[in-house]
Amino acid sequence: MTREFVAEFLGTALLLAVVVGSGIMGESLAGGNQAVALLANSLATGSALVVLILVFAPISGAHLNPVVTLSAAARGKLTWSKVAPCLLAQVLGAFVGVAVAHVMFGEPAFTASSHIRSGPGQLVSEAVATFGLVLTILAVERSRPAAVPYAVALFIVSAYWFTASTSFANPAVTLARGATATFAGIRPVDVPGFVVAQVVGAAGAVATFAWLWSPERAPGADRRTVAGQGGLVDVADEA
Amino acid sequence: MTREFVAEFLGTALLLAVVVGSGIMGESLAGGNQAVALLANSLATGSALVVLILVFAPISGAHLNPVVTLSAAARGKLTWSKVAPCLLAQVLGAFVGVAVAHVMFGEPAFTASSHIRSGPGQLVSEAVATFGLVLTILAVERSRPAAVPYAVALFIVSAYWFTASTSFANPAVTLARGATATFAGIRPVDVPGFVVAQVVGAAGAVATFAWLWSPERAPGADRRTVAGQGGLVDVADEA
Amino acid sequence: MTREFVAEFLGTALLLAVVVGSGIMGESLAGGNQAVALLANSLATGSALVVLILVFAPISGAHLNPVVTLSAAARGKLTWSKVAPCLLAQVLGAFVGVAVAHVMFGEPAFTASSHIRSGPGQLVSEAVATFGLVLTILAVERSRPAAVPYAVALFIVSAYWFTASTSFANPAVTLARGATATFAGIRPVDVPGFVVAQVVGAAGAVATFAWLWSPERAPGADRRTVAGQGGLVDVADEA
Amino acid sequence: MTREFVAEFLGTALLLAVVVGSGIMGESLAGGNQAVALLANSLATGSALVVLILVFAPISGAHLNPVVTLSAAARGKLTWSKVAPCLLAQVLGAFVGVAVAHVMFGEPAFTASSHIRSGPGQLVSEAVATFGLVLTILAVERSRPAAVPYAVALFIVSAYWFTASTSFANPAVTLARGATATFAGIRPVDVPGFVVAQVVGAAGAVATFAWLWSPERAPGADRRTVAGQGGLVDVADEA
Repeated sequence: MTREFVAEFLGTALLLAVVVGSGIMGESLAGGNQAVALLANSLATGSALVVLILVFAPISGAHLNPVVTLSAAARGKLTWSKVAPCLLAQVLGAFVGVAVAHVMFGEPAFTASSHIRSGPGQLVSEAVATFGLVLTILAVERSRPAAVPYAVALFIVSAYWFTASTSFANPAVTLARGATATFAGIRPVDVPGFVVAQVVGAAGAVATFAWLWSPERAPGADRRTVAGQGGLVDVADEA
Repeated sequence: MTREFVAEFLGTALLLAVVVGSGIMGESLAGGNQAVALLANSLATGSALVVLILVFAPISGAHLNPVVTLSAAARGKLTWSKVAPCLLAQVLGAFVGVAVAHVMFGEPAFTASSHIRSGPGQLVSEAVATFGLVLTILAVERSRPAAVPYAVALFIVSAYWFTASTSFANPAVTLARGATATFAGIRPVDVPGFVVAQVVGAAGAVATFAWLWSPERAPGADRRTVAGQGGLVDVADEA
Repeated sequence: MTREFVAEFLGTALLLAVVVGSGIMGESLAGGNQAVALLANSLATGSALVVLILVFAPISGAHLNPVVTLSAAARGKLTWSKVAPCLLAQVLGAFVGVAVAHVMFGEPAFTASSHIRSGPGQLVSEAVATFGLVLTILAVERSRPAAVPYAVALFIVSAYWFTASTSFANPAVTLARGATATFAGIRPVDVPGFVVAQVVGAAGAVATFAWLWSPERAPGADRRTVAGQGGLVDVADEA
Repeated sequence: MTREFVAEFLGTALLLAVVVGSGIMGESLAGGNQAVALLANSLATGSALVVLILVFAPISGAHLNPVVTLSAAARGKLTWSKVAPCLLAQVLGAFVGVAVAHVMFGEPAFTASSHIRSGPGQLVSEAVATFGLVLTILAVERSRPAAVPYAVALFIVSAYWFTASTSFANPAVTLARGATATFAGIRPVDVPGFVVAQVVGAAGAVATFAWLWSPERAPGADRRTVAGQGGLVDVADEA
């Protein structure tokens, strides 16, 4: 359990260092063009996500996200006793990652964001983003597990752009981004709404997945999967 | 069939949410630089296409596009009775996706586009784009099926830039983009021309594929393919 | 041979349509920022290269480039009688591709470029770019053949930026780009120098490859390769 | 040993030609927008890294980086007698690469940089970047060796943006970048601090890896790996 805790802590810390650090760098260099800053921020985040999942998945599954951990527990893939330490590691890691980014860029460890992110459009955005993220993980884990790192990263790159909230889609990330008065920040008062919307979206994804991929409804869904090496290997997963 | 209908509906809805949403976001942040907006739009669309095909292909083939469904039926890979519900799901999904994007960005559900996209250059562009898209799907599905999600996405990223129309290449997408007065919109009166050009391009691709990959002309074309797991697996498909 | 001719023709035509078309689009939208235009141009070209190689490699090897065809012949991998028709298909395809791009964007079929690309820096650039391209193809084809489409595309994306000439690295492409008075053009008088530099670079790559990967010098180089399916499959080629 | 020396020399030379060349090109075209220049620089570097590792890994492991070579030696994967020639090849290659870039862009072979990169934020950045890079290599080499070229490249793309130093993470690269008065340069007086920070980061990564992936702590970590073809093949490595 210590190893899993450390992996989730370290992975989430590096994720936040990337999200916050690349936001600071992008904004400081982009000369006021916010789209160029967000291109940098989304490219850096997506690139890092592939790597972090490749590195930490063999140890802890590389959830790096409380709603992913909760979805796994809800589906019986993770014992509930592991959930609390996992979430704790993710939240602690997230705040440490923000502090690391701030130190690299010569800022105080934590600063309160005043970036307003409220209103129905933002909440719908977070629900849609988290629905898409969790559905992606569940579906690709089932049919092409080795493609999960790429699928997760590409979904987030896309969601940075197609949602009005730039897709936080992660309660630990949301909490910690309340503590940075930079490009990636969110006003602390807007955090609870984001988290609720994320949980709603994740629950919708778990339900949709259960319906669409249920054994009685999709008897052929397993035909591309070969049971081997503990179920982790999929013979069609080769691109 | 219900599952396939839902998969095509949901996949096309998410695709349109990405196309329209990232267009709105890109344009609103790019400070008037349309190339930066299109970089964001193409990056988001390509990233999402990989994910949507990975997620929905095991259920419905993830056509998300009427001309892809029609091409499959014309080649005898899909029974004709499934075509109509498939197209219906795609068109309904496309409009719902536009509405979702609009809600996220605080717009009315539908707005009529006044974005002029007419003239011979536009029509040739749509024919070329759809020719390339359908040929890509048919050829890569045959020689390296697991690479299809990546090939489709990369083709579209490229076609957003090399065609004068930014490559709609999809009648359901074209119809629904008539209902958004944003970056991705198209004047409703220009829609029929686009759809005709797309059908022409797709037909050309089916004919070209049939000629170039016909068994008598390409007796060795199958030498890299291993029949296994229902023909879905290709041993050379490993990069 | 007809099939191979058509594949090389069609592939090179599409390649030039992408190179020239995305150059026109990028420049027209970028508001004078040439780096943004080149980002679009390089992204579109790289994306298309993956797809074109995936699509046409099973038929003709997808050389799409005279120096690649010549390198293959020099190494005894292609009979010399096939070289001339191959080069003809590539050159014809390249000019047709330029015309297709021009038609899509409402330009005359061909226009003479006045884009000056001369001087020693440009020639060294073309030699370095072609050296890198051919070495990449030879080395990756040997150790991880399924990764070739990705390796070629990524090399070209990189070379668009790190060489002073934006890396033509292809005599057919160079000739045809003399016929476009747009972003991607080259003054016809500068074409011969480019072609000579490209041949020099390719010859250097063939020699370097022969030395570094010679059986007596690299007895273990084959240990990762499994002879199967006509030598096209490499068991380590799985990322 | 000659082959390995030449591979490390050539690979590092090409890497520096890319880093410095794309920096010059990006800055000269970006019209003063430093973020656009860094987008080009990071895209070119990441693309090239995939290719260079694919090309040279079968010969020398494609370290291209003294701290990677030292980490391998410290872990007993490389005999210490090979370390000095390896480092020499990397450093020589790095300087030659800078000169090649300069020649392509019509600059003198070497020029002293006056780009100030000092202060604690820069040093922490280099330690974090090198920690992440080395941990990525060690972890992915163990669980999915065929994904290493992609993981390394994506990590560096990300680190160009999320660290305040734009992530040199390589002592040979750092030394040679002291010899270019262009976008990618570093004031020679700032080089030693960077190198020390890089060694500290790499040592931290080796220690973290040893702890997290130790056999007694991670008895199941090998369950996804199949010993075959000299331990280079991983059955789960298929995306």
